[in-house]
Amino acid sequence: MTTRIGILGAGLIGRAWAIVFARAGMPVTLYDVDAGTLDKAREAIRQSLADLQQAGLIEDTEAPLSRIRTASNLASAMTDATYIQECGPEDVEAKRRIYTNLEAVAAEDTVLASSTSGIAASQFTEHLRHPERCLVAHPVNPPYLIPLVEVAPSPATSESAVDRTMQLMVQAQQAPILVRKEIQGFILNRLQGALLNEALRLFRDGYVSAEDLDKTVKHGLGLRWSFMGPLETIDLNAPNGVVDYGQRYGPLYRDVDRQRGDDDPWAPATLAALDQERRERLPTAGLADRQAWRDRRLMALMAHQRSFSPS
Amino acid sequence: MTTRIGILGAGLIGRAWAIVFARAGMPVTLYDVDAGTLDKAREAIRQSLADLQQAGLIEDTEAPLSRIRTASNLASAMTDATYIQECGPEDVEAKRRIYTNLEAVAAEDTVLASSTSGIAASQFTEHLRHPERCLVAHPVNPPYLIPLVEVAPSPATSESAVDRTMQLMVQAQQAPILVRKEIQGFILNRLQGALLNEALRLFRDGYVSAEDLDKTVKHGLGLRWSFMGPLETIDLNAPNGVVDYGQRYGPLYRDVDRQRGDDDPWAPATLAALDQERRERLPTAGLADRQAWRDRRLMALMAHQRSFSPS
Repeated sequence: MTTRIGILGAGLIGRAWAIVFARAGMPVTLYDVDAGTLDKAREAIRQSLADLQQAGLIEDTEAPLSRIRTASNLASAMTDATYIQECGPEDVEAKRRIYTNLEAVAAEDTVLASSTSGIAASQFTEHLRHPERCLVAHPVNPPYLIPLVEVAPSPATSESAVDRTMQLMVQAQQAPILVRKEIQGFILNRLQGALLNEALRLFRDGYVSAEDLDKTVKHGLGLRWSFMGPLETIDLNAPNGVVDYGQRYGPLYRDVDRQRGDDDPWAPATLAALDQERRERLPTAGLADRQAWRDRRLMALMAHQRSFSPS
Repeated sequence: MTTRIGILGAGLIGRAWAIVFARAGMPVTLYDVDAGTLDKAREAIRQSLADLQQAGLIEDTEAPLSRIRTASNLASAMTDATYIQECGPEDVEAKRRIYTNLEAVAAEDTVLASSTSGIAASQFTEHLRHPERCLVAHPVNPPYLIPLVEVAPSPATSESAVDRTMQLMVQAQQAPILVRKEIQGFILNRLQGALLNEALRLFRDGYVSAEDLDKTVKHGLGLRWSFMGPLETIDLNAPNGVVDYGQRYGPLYRDVDRQRGDDDPWAPATLAALDQERRERLPTAGLADRQAWRDRRLMALMAHQRSFSPS
């Protein structure tokens, strides 16, 4: 049975998901209340597919594009979908309404997955008749360049909904991980936050410039982390693995943990100082070009990594 | 005037530094008290150079090898060196003795740089007649594959010693950063520690498997961090840069910061559980092969990154 994808919301994330599923050969219906947004979406998708083709990551643009249908009527868009990716506003009340509407038009066993980066599934699905087929499938932006997807069920979510979502993401060439219990920020943003909190303190307290801090990661930590992750990295960094590593470096990291004060690393003054250094290096007018550069680098990195067997 | 490099200690780090400087065309004298260690070092260096050549990262192995001289007499090894990289034991008393001996044989303006990953320069150089030419130049292992070097002066270190070291590292194709004030763990290990502390808590508390946590970084966070660093990443992740980003995500990261308890993320039981999952995926007998795989991946990534202009 073919997986038919319904996507609710044709903004940045909805469009990117459409590319992910259509690239993998799946029929996609992209729904939005606003017809103008749908027209813009089709153009943006065409452009992104052209970029992917130019980077050698897809054969042609017409085949995936032909699999994407747009619709501004929820019922006709979602009735035959077997998996629905919700990309609505980051607002609990809005999501509760959206899921009530989705339940009214979607088949009973259709998985309803939210792209939310911050709201636990239980908060907007517990009122439903069938919360067991609801969960979070949180992408990194843009998901067609960064494959990680955090699959985060609620206490009410069924195992089969989780399994079907994990399998679908693998079919779609994404890299799904399972968040076993609901937690604020899921896994990725908690790890990012822990590093950023320390980074902002080191910058604020005058130990390092923002540029040198970025160098520390891009010319140091980030190289191994881009193909191994932090736990395998430390497992390979001591003769006898992680326990050995923990005995050598645990005391230092424990001290780093304890040295953190209660101060707020995100205080406006700190962000203003960081912004000043960043804008000296990259004026606001240059942000868009640098974002395009970032995406070209991500595409080139993806092409590079394809030359290795998955591990 | 040519920079003549003296390296004290022919262990893992000393050998790797010899490759870095010889690869950049500099004459290197590698000193060790133990002649057997020196013989082993020359063989290990030959092998590493062959690996670099095979990866297309160096033209030939003989030229760099011909620039590396080994010596087991400190005075004859170090008298004509203009920069000395100390790779002795990670022990304050041992380093104090080593620096006393180096001061006795090295020219007055020769920079004395320590490879220490954990000891502030002031702790083993304040007793010297000329502490102003002493500092830490902390590499990541192996420095010929991971270019970051943390240059960490003591309060007594002169600006010219810092400048000469930063310039030397650039000539040697490394990526130096300046640690402006002495701090435990410098910058790289504090950032790594902050992420690992959160990672171990998430693993310990059952939110995620070790394998999925590594996937979160290698298929998510680590991709952008391998060429941008974390601060540029967030600067490009909000329409108006870091301040805008901080207003959107600061509250989440602040909560992550406050949710950390006083518990020890490196408790033996946590490491034992992590070790169990790691050993199921990779038995201890397989660690060496996986380390060789890691180095091949690092070499391939380095070759990939060379195709881009530095940024």
